[in-house]
Amino acid sequence: MTTPAEWYETHSELLDRAIRAATARDYWSAFPESPSKSVYGEDAAPAGERAFTALLGKPFPIEVPGATGTVSTERSPYGLELGVSYPRADPLALVAAARAATPAWRAVGPHGRAGVAAEIIKRINARSFELAHAVQHTTGQAFVMAFQAGGPHAQDRALEAVAFALAASTRLPATAEWTKPQRGSDPLHLAKTSTVVGRGVGLVIGCTTFPTWNSYPGLFASLVTGNPVIVKPHPGAVLPLAITVQVCRAVLAEAGQNPDLVTLAAEEPGDGIAATLATHPDVRIVDFTGSSEFGNWLEANASRQAVVYAEKSGLNTVIVDSTDDYRGLLRNLAFSLSLYSGQMCTTPQNILVPQTGIDTDAGHRGVDEFGADLAGALDKLLGDPQRAAGTLGAIVNDGVLSRLTEAGTAPSVIHPSTQVTHEQYPDATIRTPVVVRLDAAEEKLYTREWFGPVSFVIATESTPHSLRVFAETVRGHGALTASVYSTSPDVLSAAREAALDAGVHLSENLTGGVFVNQTAAFSDLHGTGANPAATASLTDDYFVTGRFFTLQSRHHV
Amino acid sequence: MTTPAEWYETHSELLDRAIRAATARDYWSAFPESPSKSVYGEDAAPAGERAFTALLGKPFPIEVPGATGTVSTERSPYGLELGVSYPRADPLALVAAARAATPAWRAVGPHGRAGVAAEIIKRINARSFELAHAVQHTTGQAFVMAFQAGGPHAQDRALEAVAFALAASTRLPATAEWTKPQRGSDPLHLAKTSTVVGRGVGLVIGCTTFPTWNSYPGLFASLVTGNPVIVKPHPGAVLPLAITVQVCRAVLAEAGQNPDLVTLAAEEPGDGIAATLATHPDVRIVDFTGSSEFGNWLEANASRQAVVYAEKSGLNTVIVDSTDDYRGLLRNLAFSLSLYSGQMCTTPQNILVPQTGIDTDAGHRGVDEFGADLAGALDKLLGDPQRAAGTLGAIVNDGVLSRLTEAGTAPSVIHPSTQVTHEQYPDATIRTPVVVRLDAAEEKLYTREWFGPVSFVIATESTPHSLRVFAETVRGHGALTASVYSTSPDVLSAAREAALDAGVHLSENLTGGVFVNQTAAFSDLHGTGANPAATASLTDDYFVTGRFFTLQSRHHV
Repeated sequence: MTTPAEWYETHSELLDRAIRAATARDYWSAFPESPSKSVYGEDAAPAGERAFTALLGKPFPIEVPGATGTVSTERSPYGLELGVSYPRADPLALVAAARAATPAWRAVGPHGRAGVAAEIIKRINARSFELAHAVQHTTGQAFVMAFQAGGPHAQDRALEAVAFALAASTRLPATAEWTKPQRGSDPLHLAKTSTVVGRGVGLVIGCTTFPTWNSYPGLFASLVTGNPVIVKPHPGAVLPLAITVQVCRAVLAEAGQNPDLVTLAAEEPGDGIAATLATHPDVRIVDFTGSSEFGNWLEANASRQAVVYAEKSGLNTVIVDSTDDYRGLLRNLAFSLSLYSGQMCTTPQNILVPQTGIDTDAGHRGVDEFGADLAGALDKLLGDPQRAAGTLGAIVNDGVLSRLTEAGTAPSVIHPSTQVTHEQYPDATIRTPVVVRLDAAEEKLYTREWFGPVSFVIATESTPHSLRVFAETVRGHGALTASVYSTSPDVLSAAREAALDAGVHLSENLTGGVFVNQTAAFSDLHGTGANPAATASLTDDYFVTGRFFTLQSRHHV
Repeated sequence: MTTPAEWYETHSELLDRAIRAATARDYWSAFPESPSKSVYGEDAAPAGERAFTALLGKPFPIEVPGATGTVSTERSPYGLELGVSYPRADPLALVAAARAATPAWRAVGPHGRAGVAAEIIKRINARSFELAHAVQHTTGQAFVMAFQAGGPHAQDRALEAVAFALAASTRLPATAEWTKPQRGSDPLHLAKTSTVVGRGVGLVIGCTTFPTWNSYPGLFASLVTGNPVIVKPHPGAVLPLAITVQVCRAVLAEAGQNPDLVTLAAEEPGDGIAATLATHPDVRIVDFTGSSEFGNWLEANASRQAVVYAEKSGLNTVIVDSTDDYRGLLRNLAFSLSLYSGQMCTTPQNILVPQTGIDTDAGHRGVDEFGADLAGALDKLLGDPQRAAGTLGAIVNDGVLSRLTEAGTAPSVIHPSTQVTHEQYPDATIRTPVVVRLDAAEEKLYTREWFGPVSFVIATESTPHSLRVFAETVRGHGALTASVYSTSPDVLSAAREAALDAGVHLSENLTGGVFVNQTAAFSDLHGTGANPAATASLTDDYFVTGRFFTLQSRHHV
């Protein structure tokens, strides 16, 4: 057994460094994103693949309190036979087990809990290759992306949440002395203590596209602030979170804690246990990533008894005004549309271009010329099938495919979606983005979210009109990302104001190796609570302070 | 005109000191609580009284956008004729005016907003005597208490909220540089900015007993984080908040801001504008102090579009086990029951005593002996009418009086409530507390809140039973305060655990000049979100972080 305090000692430097980075917002990363041998060791990649393969076709080794029977709900978008089964969760049994585990966890205190969390994340990092395969074959991400986004980037986001949770829950001192002078008598003298108490049972509802990256911040923020957590994966992407929960339980048990502090809630599609759990009176924290429909339902129904941190969807927008690096703009934008075949909550959908065209270092380009150039950039990026398969992803479900098909029937397709064949997985449905030309008046089409590789080049009256459309549509329908291209300081300044009005983060003139759909832990906030696409940012103080209370006691000295 | 930045410069030392105190939680106060001439100056008291008297019988000089007609709704519990009238608010006009004032306030930034807030609080402090009369003659508090709780203590709570809001909204740096090393190519280099954006229009709903103390934290936390605030006083206690809003508007105008950032929403009882405003889509923050009934309604209805910080009511509990200072215990408890005639949300209601009695330095006392001793302590404290009138308060409304009367008809009254005559205001209804003896089984009586000077001595089976009753009733019905008297370290330790389970702050063995119903700004949290009596503490990070968003922009350097 290693006590939580010992694990805090082991990881205190890492935690201190993470808190400094989270405060400074400069570049820092705890977990290398490169899956190379020079970083993770000669055997890491094959060992990870062996570990993944060993899980296939079997019941996943995990204990779930009160479970009855098993479920097996995943299919690989690459066509690999998975056949992993999980205990089928009984939501009431999970809540009861979580509650029973809570008092001893409260007694550990913030530092010990952060030490345990750091140990968990380190062990998850050691399983990054195994996790990469699990993420690839549930989400459809290409392997390197599955490694990075599902592994080190998610682990950095987890550590960032631990850092914020530890900093926020220790900001008031555990003890204080209070001496108040009295006129004409001895001072009043009190000793005071502060104890961090978790809000209650936490529920993390995972999504099918980024099961680890989107779930870790809520999981670790709740855990470090003293709460037990029930992890409810999407039925299509259970394995990455099952591995995660397995690691959590092992470390908690080694720390002398009840492993039921973190449990896996696997279900048949249709069991509806997310709704049952989210409205349970003892479930006091809900973290959700997924559709606006269920997110809105949670906000309306679960917020009666719980704080709800929801990341939903929206209309990610690009305002194109002018550029001094037209090739860089096209290359950057083409990559943003293509990455993981647009199945990111951050992929640009609405590209606003003035109908009078744009000034560029390659001359003035009309809106139709811009559309053709963007299509050309996509073809260039995705011309080589092997490289294309490494950038795009396999289509994760029929919903994405049907939107892609629907968009492809529009009258003015600029770039049609085509199939790319994967050498290793020839049956995988891997598709290039469809781009459709619209006019600003066709708002019925572009104020819907078309999650997947569907984007619109929308002709507006002018850049000021683009900014108005941007602010209004994002304020009304939400967005996780926005970007602007302009050489004019006035336009950039107006775009910043419009982004503040819309309540969305803004990327300006990205033409190099940074993409609007990617945010970096410890520096970029992901999402904002300021528009309908999300209720919080990953990770800031608001994201953690609702998860605990500080209770004081005081007595005379 | 003085710019916000200039006011920040003027008050930066005060703000820095306040942030340090709020973090250290040791004793600090910015505003002297003594109404003495040596502190506030020779003429302060008479000048304040003259200023108050000059307001009586007239329309209050304040501009309210869109107001039609006037209301005059206050009556002094001391019987003084007030006759002050206020513009009658149109809620939609107030929201529109608030929204129009917002963009320029956002552009000021956190430091300038904190500077303006500090200037407002300083000017409020300069009007403390005038405010004391206004508080006395709306709430029924005795003058010195009205001065302290309505003046300097409220101002300290205001400054504390400013400190938390400034610290939290500047914790992420306004600018950061991000340089990410690349394998085999130049590093990626981005400049990033963070901008604090308020959540939306704030609404502060005041109460009739502590119009300033309970309203200031929400008012100033919202203002400093970039939000306009509509102040909706209780119709029975408008004047203290009208003076406050008047000061806010004057300072905002001098700072070149639109004074409609802070407006007064006075109404006829029955206009119901609190509900109209609280559910308006543009009202995104609600601060409320008052009844559980309306608080619960707000939590259910306003939390669809707003964050709701509510302080309601509960069952404040005292666990009596044993003591080595019986006289101190009785004196302290008698004062806690008597202060402002028990019309505090923090006044103890349920006093749990084992039926086998308690060990004290004055020998073993049975539960009935304890009741008699407490009654004796009350009589001793309140025996002199002049001193009694300075400790007790005038009954603020008929609801309190009818509960007092109802409790007085109980079969086992230990201490009956009697009338105390005020020399200056002989018509005022000033009453001593009623104390009733109950058994633990009579929970129907003591699990209701009896707001006012009504307390119960409840015989339990034992101290462990007292602790169970305490934890269960507070978890179920809420409490703002709890205290325990015991000489046993084991009992104190068990009481601390019970308080953590119940979710309430705990005072231990208070026998001197600190009382359970008083909390000190910068050191004691007031309320917790961990039981049904409140959704937040005054003031911690959770109380401020929901009031703003941080929006980022980034571009290559």
